[in-house]
Amino acid sequence: MDRMNLAMLTDFYELTMANGYFQNGLKDKIAYFDMFFRKVPDNGGFAIMAGVEQLIQYLKDLRFDDEDIEYLRSKNLFSEEFLQYLKAFRLSCDVWAVPEGTPIFPNEPVVTVRGPVIEAQFIETMILLTINHQSLIATKSNRIVRAAQGRDIMEFGSRRAQGYDGAIYGARAAYIGGCVGTACTIAEKEFGIPAIGTMAHSWIQIFSNELEAFRAYARTYPDNCTLLVDTYNVLKSGVPNAIKVFNEEVLPRGFRPTGIRIDSGDITYLSKEARKMLDEAGFQDCRIVASNSLDEFIIRDILIQGAQVDLFGVGERLITSKSDPVFGGVYKLVAVEENDEIIPKIKLSENVEKITNPGFKQIWRLFDKKSGKAIADVLTKNDETIDESKPYELFDPEYTWKRKTVSSFIAKRLLIRLFDKGTCVYASPKLKEIKSYCKEQIDTLWDAVKRFENPHKYYVDLSKPLWDIRERLLQEYSAK
Amino acid sequence: MDRMNLAMLTDFYELTMANGYFQNGLKDKIAYFDMFFRKVPDNGGFAIMAGVEQLIQYLKDLRFDDEDIEYLRSKNLFSEEFLQYLKAFRLSCDVWAVPEGTPIFPNEPVVTVRGPVIEAQFIETMILLTINHQSLIATKSNRIVRAAQGRDIMEFGSRRAQGYDGAIYGARAAYIGGCVGTACTIAEKEFGIPAIGTMAHSWIQIFSNELEAFRAYARTYPDNCTLLVDTYNVLKSGVPNAIKVFNEEVLPRGFRPTGIRIDSGDITYLSKEARKMLDEAGFQDCRIVASNSLDEFIIRDILIQGAQVDLFGVGERLITSKSDPVFGGVYKLVAVEENDEIIPKIKLSENVEKITNPGFKQIWRLFDKKSGKAIADVLTKNDETIDESKPYELFDPEYTWKRKTVSSFIAKRLLIRLFDKGTCVYASPKLKEIKSYCKEQIDTLWDAVKRFENPHKYYVDLSKPLWDIRERLLQEYSAK
Repeated sequence: MDRMNLAMLTDFYELTMANGYFQNGLKDKIAYFDMFFRKVPDNGGFAIMAGVEQLIQYLKDLRFDDEDIEYLRSKNLFSEEFLQYLKAFRLSCDVWAVPEGTPIFPNEPVVTVRGPVIEAQFIETMILLTINHQSLIATKSNRIVRAAQGRDIMEFGSRRAQGYDGAIYGARAAYIGGCVGTACTIAEKEFGIPAIGTMAHSWIQIFSNELEAFRAYARTYPDNCTLLVDTYNVLKSGVPNAIKVFNEEVLPRGFRPTGIRIDSGDITYLSKEARKMLDEAGFQDCRIVASNSLDEFIIRDILIQGAQVDLFGVGERLITSKSDPVFGGVYKLVAVEENDEIIPKIKLSENVEKITNPGFKQIWRLFDKKSGKAIADVLTKNDETIDESKPYELFDPEYTWKRKTVSSFIAKRLLIRLFDKGTCVYASPKLKEIKSYCKEQIDTLWDAVKRFENPHKYYVDLSKPLWDIRERLLQEYSAK
Repeated sequence: MDRMNLAMLTDFYELTMANGYFQNGLKDKIAYFDMFFRKVPDNGGFAIMAGVEQLIQYLKDLRFDDEDIEYLRSKNLFSEEFLQYLKAFRLSCDVWAVPEGTPIFPNEPVVTVRGPVIEAQFIETMILLTINHQSLIATKSNRIVRAAQGRDIMEFGSRRAQGYDGAIYGARAAYIGGCVGTACTIAEKEFGIPAIGTMAHSWIQIFSNELEAFRAYARTYPDNCTLLVDTYNVLKSGVPNAIKVFNEEVLPRGFRPTGIRIDSGDITYLSKEARKMLDEAGFQDCRIVASNSLDEFIIRDILIQGAQVDLFGVGERLITSKSDPVFGGVYKLVAVEENDEIIPKIKLSENVEKITNPGFKQIWRLFDKKSGKAIADVLTKNDETIDESKPYELFDPEYTWKRKTVSSFIAKRLLIRLFDKGTCVYASPKLKEIKSYCKEQIDTLWDAVKRFENPHKYYVDLSKPLWDIRERLLQEYSAK
């Protein structure tokens, strides 16, 4: 199937604005944009950054080919000089982002772009699309992984994903969030995510009966034999037949059975009964896999009731983040340069929570030296430094009387440079490393932040210099 | 950005089963599979079929390249003969589907595949992924279009889509469902869907003030001037500045202004006030565009309250079908061939509504001759005919005492052949034709079926011969 060049995957207004900037002498105007989000999906305590590698790929490859130019010309909207500019286009922006796998919080700049306004504006759609999608799925996957309390989660959702990339990059993001593997074959081929899968109900139906179907499977894959036991009746037929076939076809070939899978019915009851039957038959090491419209809430519930499941296959509710399928990242102008000076910009709103944090910024995460736990994030002007050797006073940007002085901390910058004037200067870590880093970083969060219900609000404060800029701009606007 | 060959976009179990069928002498076993769904998203009365063109493209192009084979070989699971078989693979299946844009109902086969079980099974993931995604978005888009009661809907959701294809094919499906256009540029370039867009808030911010920003835009696009009026204050600043610029920059150049856009605040109140101001200034033809987390429920509500909106831009809640983001299509074995005879298969379930309709089938839609309205759908054996010249008795497959005899009807087959032994024999209509066909077909549904709340259940009945097969299989299984 032919895949398309994605240069035109952009909101049309990016192009009308680009041409407009070009026509109005703003071609070389330097602007700063931040991507940030305002609300964690599912009212969780944190989200997980993902999609940076694909964003880099897009920015590296961004070119306008003859077909693109021809199409744009046919719109009769764009000047010929602008089209020639696009034809010769090479990215010249500086780009910073929070590394993939990092826990992220509302109102932090997770991507910052500095460059000519035409360019920095044009790439908005793909920055948002890429980071919104993968961060959504990484965040959801991590919720499900945490609900399973150490049991394995497999991503099973390709068939219900929203488009091909929904499946492919969704599987990637799910792995970052903590899934041990996927059913999506191409995700193993492209990203090395372990892909597994055994049989559908149709396999059972095509043979004359369940026993024959199990036998045929066991003979073909004696070293990797997981049998689907719910086509007819899990406890009366599926598990007894599986045990029979494990004994007759798997053991004699020198292997141990891998597992059984239950895809319908009351997973709690069926898994407990199946566990007993397998144990009594001497298959204590045979894993029980469960699937069927699971999510973090159902998994939490059935584990509380003692379900004996070793691996959960989670499909549609993971791959679409069904309970909250939108990651609402936005991309806002935060500064421009005038005579080599950075002029912070603010966007006001009737909704106080929609007021942006102005200026070119850095995010610092403060970790307690003793416990290693994350204390708070601080947004600063980009050229500020937080001195670890001195106590540091945090204060809430809205309720400024809420103050706390911390000492004995490590301060880590979160925004890392990806592009230096259009040249990529960042090497994405291997996916496995991103996954381990994600787990480590989540371990630095207090349990209270990780609760599903009413999580503790992690603090994202402003430095005094940044807060002053924000206040000044707010005063200036309200005086108008 | 490099796009991938999609042959490996398949659940891994399709491959383990394929190799298993191959090893167990079932390579040439002929099987029939149906794709159908069980529940209309958002509890609506009907869904809309979409994605057939992309499915055809996939099936036409399906090949396994050297990289795929090499990857599969590295799994140490598959026999060399099977890998050689994949290397030489060409689709040989027969495929039927309901044309794009057709209203579809639960438990109808919207895709039917007949062919060697290896092939027919292998393509499951992509059939489901393609049709589930686009049908979901076409269905959602049509709900939103209907809520707007004749006002235009634009698809604005690329940045919040679930992956690149989520945006691209989502825009395509949204157009089928009735959107007049999209903000997604590549959807115009690839599919000819009208793409429009004007400016973001950043355009306003980059100039010294709103008035200057409007002037610059109007001079660049005097013939296509829609201004975003909510950056500072819609009624005190945005609309008055827009009127000023329309008068000073647009009219003198011989054009009429196109519109204003409101992207925040109380759309109902602001649009009514803006309408008055525009009318008083002599711009009765200037359209008001509204956006900001809209969906069918909000649009219905604000129109009841008299909002003066001519065009709605609908983003994240359309492109992800936020209120119900999963289209739960499934793919089930319904028959096999033995000695050239079709043997129907049924899948039982503890959940009565999950029992499948067995056999190789056709869907007939019965239209009343006089009103043109759709009366009911009837599933028949594939070789049955419904004789329009005679009265036809419909009966409910569960409550068989519910009967109704219809006469003076037209009976139309819905399943159309796409592939004949692997050769594509169907030419997809142009996208515009699909869109008009969709509108026409929805007009054949009674209003009661189109309600959002508690819609009337459209009947999907079984013919007597098909019902008899189903009953026989149920009896046989329960006797076991």
